[in-house]
Amino acid sequence: MERHLDYDLDRIRQSLLRMGGLVEKMVADATQALVDRDTPLARAVVDRDHEIDLLEIEIDEDCHSILSRKQPTAVDLRFLVAVMKINSDLERIGDSAVNIAQSVEKLNEEPVLKPYVDIPHQSQLVQAMVRQSLDAFVRRDDRLAIDVCRGDDEVDGVYRKLFCELLGYMTEDREKVTRALHLLLISRNLERIADHSTNIAEDVIYYVSGRDVRHQTDQAATG
Amino acid sequence: MERHLDYDLDRIRQSLLRMGGLVEKMVADATQALVDRDTPLARAVVDRDHEIDLLEIEIDEDCHSILSRKQPTAVDLRFLVAVMKINSDLERIGDSAVNIAQSVEKLNEEPVLKPYVDIPHQSQLVQAMVRQSLDAFVRRDDRLAIDVCRGDDEVDGVYRKLFCELLGYMTEDREKVTRALHLLLISRNLERIADHSTNIAEDVIYYVSGRDVRHQTDQAATG
Repeated sequence: MERHLDYDLDRIRQSLLRMGGLVEKMVADATQALVDRDTPLARAVVDRDHEIDLLEIEIDEDCHSILSRKQPTAVDLRFLVAVMKINSDLERIGDSAVNIAQSVEKLNEEPVLKPYVDIPHQSQLVQAMVRQSLDAFVRRDDRLAIDVCRGDDEVDGVYRKLFCELLGYMTEDREKVTRALHLLLISRNLERIADHSTNIAEDVIYYVSGRDVRHQTDQAATG
Repeated sequence: MERHLDYDLDRIRQSLLRMGGLVEKMVADATQALVDRDTPLARAVVDRDHEIDLLEIEIDEDCHSILSRKQPTAVDLRFLVAVMKINSDLERIGDSAVNIAQSVEKLNEEPVLKPYVDIPHQSQLVQAMVRQSLDAFVRRDDRLAIDVCRGDDEVDGVYRKLFCELLGYMTEDREKVTRALHLLLISRNLERIADHSTNIAEDVIYYVSGRDVRHQTDQAATG
């Protein structure tokens, strides 16, 4: 029975990592679609949403079935609770990537407002946060998870800087309003992805150590 | 033992309802602070965030402790899983209310852009969604939960209409850009609260019927 449980938990871990890899790629592709003005790539991100939704349901059902049949305790129980929460955050990261891709589709219909520097940088930061939070989960590494939580401040900083800059574009020239607004929404979605990665990291800390560290690293964000 | 479990589950239900009542009031107060230009009320919403954070942790720990000690099955297990998810959505509704209140603080520093009609209307709709999703939970009423999911379309509709209107203000007059942007962010946060209420309603359906209906009622939203 114990060995069966390990087998079940490992299968769930693999599914969750697959989902993590998919949503991380969605974020990367949505950003690439912006930089390369590649509208079909943006559309492909939007179309991938359905796959993520199905995977979320599959993982959740798997967790529930194991909880119900095997009644795990202690660290195994914490593992399953953490997986259900991480699963939900990954799905929302996928949603944010779709929002970004939809803004990219609109941006690509107009001339480039300015060279895209800050958003690709912000996107790199949040992709690293997604990846590291899942690495921390796999390795049961609560120190790495704490590092992820700290990364959130840098992403918030980029968002605040961009917010002011884009607001400047909007007030300077009415022709730039729509484009600046879509860039602002993209940056806001990236900032949300960082929040979800922080949530994942906090779930990892709970899973590994049994400690709940939520809301100890919160920072107020603009907007 | 069974009776003890019922007692535990009832305590958790009460805590969750208390949290639901608090976040619903935060949404109502943030909106009132906009309409009445009441900055201290907006500040009070921001300050209440900490209470919600603590309540979230308390409920989560309570659920985990019961899962671990009593190993409930079937509907009781589904109840606890649903509570943990609803708890997380309520906390994020609180975060959105805080975001709204922060935008209200900035808006109240400047003259009124236009009479606030659509946002109070949208806010009424989402407050009703929050309330109904929790009513559905208490009454184990999956039909009411399905109604909540349907309400999401109307809220999205208000957001899309406002998005276009506010974009119009932004392009028309540079003086209006900042205020229109904050109103847009408020409407966007209300739209997110509707999404969270839909998530809660879907969790209620799962809890009551054992069916997972997520992503069957999704609509793409602007932004």
